[in-house]
Parts: sequence; C-alpha cells; structure tokens
Amino acid sequence: MSADDSPDAYDSLLERYKRATYIGDAAGVLSWDQEVVMPEGGTPARSKQTSALSGARHDILTSDEFEADLNAAEDAALSDEQAAVVREIRREFDRAAKVPKSLVERISEETSNALPIWKEAKAEDDWETFAPQVETLLELKREYANHIDPEADTYEVLFADYEPWLDLSVAEDVLEQLRDALRPLIDDLNEADADLATPFDGTYSDDDQFSLAESTLEYLGYPDDHGRLDTAPHPFSSGTQFDARVTTRFDNEDPVGSIGSVIHEFGHATYTLGLPREEYGTPLGQNRGLTVHESQSRLWENHVGRSASFLSNYVDLVNDDLGTDISGQELYEAANQVYPDNLIRVEADELTYHMHIILRFEIERDLLSGELDVADVPEVWNAKMEEYLGVTPDTDAEGCLQDIHWAHGSFGYFPTYSLGSVLAAQLFDAAESDIEGLDSQLADGEFDALHEWLTEEVHQHGARYTTNELVKRATGEEFSADAFIEYADAKFSDLYDL
Amino acid sequence: MSADDSPDAYDSLLERYKRATYIGDAAGVLSWDQEVVMPEGGTPARSKQTSALSGARHDILTSDEFEADLNAAEDAALSDEQAAVVREIRREFDRAAKVPKSLVERISEETSNALPIWKEAKAEDDWETFAPQVETLLELKREYANHIDPEADTYEVLFADYEPWLDLSVAEDVLEQLRDALRPLIDDLNEADADLATPFDGTYSDDDQFSLAESTLEYLGYPDDHGRLDTAPHPFSSGTQFDARVTTRFDNEDPVGSIGSVIHEFGHATYTLGLPREEYGTPLGQNRGLTVHESQSRLWENHVGRSASFLSNYVDLVNDDLGTDISGQELYEAANQVYPDNLIRVEADELTYHMHIILRFEIERDLLSGELDVADVPEVWNAKMEEYLGVTPDTDAEGCLQDIHWAHGSFGYFPTYSLGSVLAAQLFDAAESDIEGLDSQLADGEFDALHEWLTEEVHQHGARYTTNELVKRATGEEFSADAFIEYADAKFSDLYDL
Repeated sequence: MSADDSPDAYDSLLERYKRATYIGDAAGVLSWDQEVVMPEGGTPARSKQTSALSGARHDILTSDEFEADLNAAEDAALSDEQAAVVREIRREFDRAAKVPKSLVERISEETSNALPIWKEAKAEDDWETFAPQVETLLELKREYANHIDPEADTYEVLFADYEPWLDLSVAEDVLEQLRDALRPLIDDLNEADADLATPFDGTYSDDDQFSLAESTLEYLGYPDDHGRLDTAPHPFSSGTQFDARVTTRFDNEDPVGSIGSVIHEFGHATYTLGLPREEYGTPLGQNRGLTVHESQSRLWENHVGRSASFLSNYVDLVNDDLGTDISGQELYEAANQVYPDNLIRVEADELTYHMHIILRFEIERDLLSGELDVADVPEVWNAKMEEYLGVTPDTDAEGCLQDIHWAHGSFGYFPTYSLGSVLAAQLFDAAESDIEGLDSQLADGEFDALHEWLTEEVHQHGARYTTNELVKRATGEEFSADAFIEYADAKFSDLYDL
Repeated sequence: MSADDSPDAYDSLLERYKRATYIGDAAGVLSWDQEVVMPEGGTPARSKQTSALSGARHDILTSDEFEADLNAAEDAALSDEQAAVVREIRREFDRAAKVPKSLVERISEETSNALPIWKEAKAEDDWETFAPQVETLLELKREYANHIDPEADTYEVLFADYEPWLDLSVAEDVLEQLRDALRPLIDDLNEADADLATPFDGTYSDDDQFSLAESTLEYLGYPDDHGRLDTAPHPFSSGTQFDARVTTRFDNEDPVGSIGSVIHEFGHATYTLGLPREEYGTPLGQNRGLTVHESQSRLWENHVGRSASFLSNYVDLVNDDLGTDISGQELYEAANQVYPDNLIRVEADELTYHMHIILRFEIERDLLSGELDVADVPEVWNAKMEEYLGVTPDTDAEGCLQDIHWAHGSFGYFPTYSLGSVLAAQLFDAAESDIEGLDSQLADGEFDALHEWLTEEVHQHGARYTTNELVKRATGEEFSADAFIEYADAKFSDLYDL
C-alpha cells in the first residue's frame, strides 16, 4: 500500500492512527514493566503515566481531523485491503468518540491503582480489601458501556472490546455446548478408575524450572532477539511483532504447570511475532482480537504441548533440566490429568477449564447487571465451584481473588478463553489435513511447517478479515465448537479407558 | 498550593503541564527498558513509540490552550512559589513552541535508531559505522538550536537544555580553571613516587560484584520499594520520586569501578527520590537541571564514597562479598589512584576526569560549528588525549566511541559533569560546616544527617530556585570552582606526599 496509489485522506488517517497505536504500545511497555520489574512504590507515578497515555491516544482517535480523514477515506475509492483497514478504524473511532476522555483516563488510573490492591488482597486472602476497587471499576465500566451503546446489554458491549466480530450469543452457545458435552465427560472420568502417571514427586527449584522454560522456548523456535522470558505473579505475554515477551511462574511441587504456561504464552508471542512488520501500527499489523489470540496459545499449549507425539521427545529436555528420569508416556499422562478438584483456572486441565470460565462469565454478567453484589462474590463463587466441579475453595485467594482480570478492569474478557480453545481445535484439525506428517514432525521437534501454516492462514493477515471470515478462509468452515468437543471426547476417552 | 487560592488559569496550566510531564516520564520508562531489558530486535517499534510520545508531549506544551493559560497565569496574582512554577513552564514553552513537532519526532526517532548502531560500532571498533548517525544527529540538533535562537551560538543553545540557569561562559570559566589547576597537579602526581596500594589482584565474578552492589545500596539507605538495581552497558539512573532506578556494570579485574558507579548512581537516585512526591509532575517536583543532579551523584561518589572515613568500615562489605581481606586504608588508596593513562571517562579518577570533559567539550563545539568533520573525530580525539593526558587509545571503542551521549543526541551535555563535580565540593563544604561530626558519621555508616541536609537544602526545592539561587541558599556563596580545587589539592597532595 504505497502513498502513490492510495487516497490522501486514507494516508493521513493512517498516519494519525499509527501514532495512536504507538502510544498504546508504549502503554503496553509500561504495563509489562509494572507487572514484571517495577518496585511497588512506583504505583502512584505509574498510574499517572498510563492515564496520560490513554488520554493522549484517545485525543488522537477522537480529534476532528481524525474524523474528517475517516469520513473522507470512506468516500474514496479504496482497495479491499484499504477498505478493511478503514472498517477497523471506523469501529475503533465509533467506540472511542462516544467515551469522554476524562472517563478513559479515570479507568486507566483506577486500574493502575487496583493492581497493588489486588496483590495485597490476594496475599492476605481478604476480598474486602479488593471489593471497593471492584465496585469502582464496575461502575466506571458500566458508565463506559452506556456511553458506547445505552440500548445494549452492558456485558455485550464490554465483550466486544475483546472480541469485536463474534456476537455474544455465539459465546453463550459455545459455553452451553461445552457445559453440556463436558460435564458428563468429566463425571465419566471421575468414575473411571484409570490410573494416570504422576511422575513428579520431588521439589523442583525456580532456577531449574527457569532453565527448562528457556530450553522449551528455544526448542519451539522462540527468537531471543525479539523476545524475553521473565517471571510474573500472573503469566502473560505482551509486545509487538518486533518484541513479544513472555512470562511464567513456578510451583516447586508441580513443574507441569509452568511447562504449560510457557508453551501457552509462546503461542501468544508467536502470533504477535507473525504479524507483518511492515504494517506495524496499522490494523493489518494488529491481532484479530482475543478469540484468535487465544486460539494460538491454546493450539500450542494443548494440541502441540499436551500431545503424546510432542512429549515423546520433549521429555528429554525435562529430564535434563529437572534431573528427572521419566518417560514420554508418563509426561503425557501427567500433562493430561483431569482434576475436577483443582481450584485455579490457569492450572486447569483442558476439560474443567471451561467450567472455570462459565462460572466467571455468570458472575461477571450478574455483577454488571447489578443482580449480584460485590460483597457476595465469594459466596457465589464458592457455591458455583461446588456446583460445577464439586469442590469449594478454602480461601478467596484460591477462589475469587485468583485472577488479575478484574484488577485490570477486564470484565467481559473470560469467554474469549473458551472461544479461543475451541477455535484452536478447529484450526489444528485444518492444519493436520494440510500438513502431511504433522504428527511425526511434532515428535521430532520440527515446527517449521506448522509455523508456516499458522503464519500463512492466521498471523500474516493481522486484522484484515473479521473473525469468522478468517476462520472460514483457514478451515473452510464456520466457527464452531464441534472440533473441540470431538477432540476432547476422543482424547480423554482413550486416556481414561472409557 | 491548593486550588482554592490559586488562579484558575494557573490551575489549568498546571494540569496540562503535568500531563506533559507524565508522558515524558513514560518515555523515560521506555528508555530504561531499551537500555536494560529490551531484546535487540525491538528497536524499530521502540523508535516509533518514543517518537510518538515526544510528539504527544510537544503537542500539549505548544497548544493554543496551553499558551493562553500561560499568558493568563503570568498576568494573575501569584505567590512566589507559583511565580517560580510559571517561570519554569514559560521557559519550556518558549523552547518547545519554536521547534516544529516533525523535528522533535525526527530527533526522537533518530536517537532511538542510533543506540543499536552505536553499540554495534563500539563492539566492532568501527567509527565509520556510527559516523553517518552522528552526522544526522548533528544536523538535526543544529536545526533544533536554530529554531530556538537563530542568533545564538549553537552550542550555547544546546547546553541550556541541560543546564538552563548557568551561562555557558560560567562553564567555560570553570573548565579553564580546572585545566589550569589540575594539569600541574596531575604532572606533580606523575612525578611523585608515592606507592599507593592496589589490593585487588584477583578475578571478581559478576555475581559477587552484584551482591556487593546490592549491599552497598542497602548500606547507603537506598529504598528497595522505590528503586531497583540492574546492569547496563553504560551505567545510568532514571525515574521519578516514586521509582528511581540505578544500573551498574562490572569489570572482573577491577571491582573499584563498579563500587564508584553504584555510589554515583545512588547519588542521582537519592536526589530524584528526595523531590517532593506531592508535587509530582510540576516543576516543584522536578530536578534543577543536570549541574545540580551531577552535584548529588558526585557528592556521594567522591566526597562520601572516596573518603577515608567512609571506606574505613565500608571495606567490611567489600571483604564479605568479594572474599578479599583488605584494609580501609588500602581501599582508600585503591579508590583514589590517579591514572593519567586511563582512557575511559567513567572510570577516571577525580582529577583526570575533567580532562576527559574538556576534550569532549572542545570536540563537540567544533563539530557543531562545522570546524571539525565527523570523519576526523577519531584523529582529533586521539591527539587531544595525547595532549591532555599523555596517552593515545589503541581503538576507537576505547576512544571516541566510548560514550553513549552522542547516540542519545546529547550534544552540549558534558560540561555539566564538571560543573556538577565542582558544585559537589562546594555543597559538601557547607554540609560539613552545618553537620557536627559528619566525618565520623560517614565512618559509622550513619547517613541520616547528610540525607536530611541534602533534602532540606537541595532536593525538596525541585526547580523552585534557579541554579545559582539554590547554591547561594545552600552555601551562602555564589557558584564557584574554588572549593573543589582546594579539596583536590589538599587530598591528593596528602595522598601522594607532595
């Protein structure tokens, strides 16, 4: 897309938009810093800084000049690609322009403030410390959603911030299908008396696990000149196609958790790194929303990282770094245990995971609608845990305080985790059809063909296509949970001899 | 300064100004990240991000609304403190408003690009790789200075970016006095045959030196909830009164270098941390320019850290962390060796240091005026090293490529190092008069009284007073090099038995 054959208004619009993106990405660096390296006492200044960046970005996206360029670009003769760019920018403008800057800055400042309060509340297992902050953020987010669309359901408006091109009804359908299909399967597994291997019975130091995390990333092809590995209380990945970082954390009794989270965050980072560099700052250089993002992390975590073929040789790295002596089959069983009594979402297996999401979705929906009081969250959380998984957390730290999302003000985010998981299965099915011998490649630690397929079908397009368009191009089918349900059923029936 | 008794225009001005400061501080975080943790491949995105922040900050400081508020505030009835705030903002506005935003962004982007090129050139000892970048930055900085004051000398305009309230002629006088006083002293020391102790003859690992750096910071009272220690190729400190970080680097043969740099950066950080928190974002919460900043680092590095009394007990930390067994007197002698044959500015002793500055000052002045070609810098550098210190670097890596400043586009910065050093002596003299038993406090590792004195006399005022006003209030005298020259003469005559 050269300046020569694109309308002036389009070029001018894109320049402004890129500037806004760069400021947003700068805020991303500040957020990484806050979660990974910032000393605690830095919070008051950091809140001001991130809030000022939110405001500056908002100023650009809502300026009269921006709107004029946008209107003129829409009236100009555009290529399909340019039209897609303008579609994305229009959507962002419409949402931004409706929200007053003061509210944007306030949300940014309050979420920055909330982070240390959540950490403290979690450390002290005290929901009451965190509750006022949740109340404030809910109120601000309700206000935010009301500015964007006073007619629409609050949850629906917020959900669209994370997944712009799938209706909330699709998410609701998927969650319902998952509940209906997985609940009986989980019950069956519980009753089955298969004895899966639990080969890790020692203590595994942070240093050894860090080495393993590094080896894992190298094995998968993570480029160390475009990323880095750190530890953080809540693993995440962030960055741009030039610098996509990952974090993990360690449980000294259970190294499987960190292995999974490293491969998961690698999947996110590899998507980010696959976005076209020459489109940095434009919608064509941006990810297609959280469903697709999560599909990439889940594809690597579950369909690669939890597969028997991958683990058959990868186990050598584990044995080298942790000083263990276990087999590929043992690691495969350890990585695929289904634990209905697990309390922590990010440590959940592929099946119960979705129960954790359904619980959060229901609680958030009721919090936003006002049907549920913030003070009652612990009670409702625990009741739902009992209902869906048959287990009640002893503490709120292991219950409603476990996730960082509310401290980030991210209400409406959770369903994209389930959507991403099901999309991962659908995409992996398609990749398996297209790549001959994929399974033995995974066993051999050969990931080039899979990387290429994902880059070709997903990464390189940025936000060129809407979510469902992208899925149809890559798989030939509409977005659906079928592949996941079929995959889960086959895999776990086999593992548990059902 | 409450909203109740301050004029509306003043309040509005301050809100805008704070927003600009926050964005500038966000850029500071990005710069820390780039120098300390960013993977190399992140540069292209980082350049865009920092440039966008420079532009956003510039937009605020040069907006019509900002100018209108500034004019109105100047016409309002202001307290002395408010008048000082407006004086600082006016100065910044005048400089910013004259420079086109495109130039600001271009400088920011080019300096961000220059950093990896400088690193590469230094690693490969190849000035030619870096030269085109220096040429570009010189041209941009000439243009920049010309916008600010087309009548004035380019160097003078750039110098005022770092030290706004002392004339360049003061710097020139000081440099001349230092040359005149120190050259003969250095010659005398060279001829003296005092045999100072060189107790470090082993190899000291990065890990041990890192531990020592941590112990040193703790000993000095550096608060770990408001700062952090990392390594960087070029030690620096950065941050705000909430989060002031330091970096160091290690020479495995010579631990004295890192000890000095840690105490130096601690001095900077402790100034930053002493700025009033409630004034964060306003001129009253900002430092008083680089002369005063450097006076704080030099005071701690030289007048505390290189003193016999401080080292007498501090040596225990060294012995503990490095596994050595040396005496306080040996460490004192090791920390105060004068090495005219040292090539590296940041490793220079208190005397030859200023020769390094004079050399850079002369080269930069001639580069900016066009009298010196960029291609000829290595030759002129080496000739001046021979002239001032009697030694010629073997490589440009140890010569004209050693400093990061040009990669930052920081031309005109170096004289503040010498100004800061002489001010350190002047302030320390005053502190010694005011604090009874300071010397034995330093021996005992008691720094509270000195911290309090510096906070009271320097830190807490932010940019409330001009440089010379601040000096007069703290010391009762005009800014002068006399105290330093007297101090250096006495100390080194004694050490070298002159």
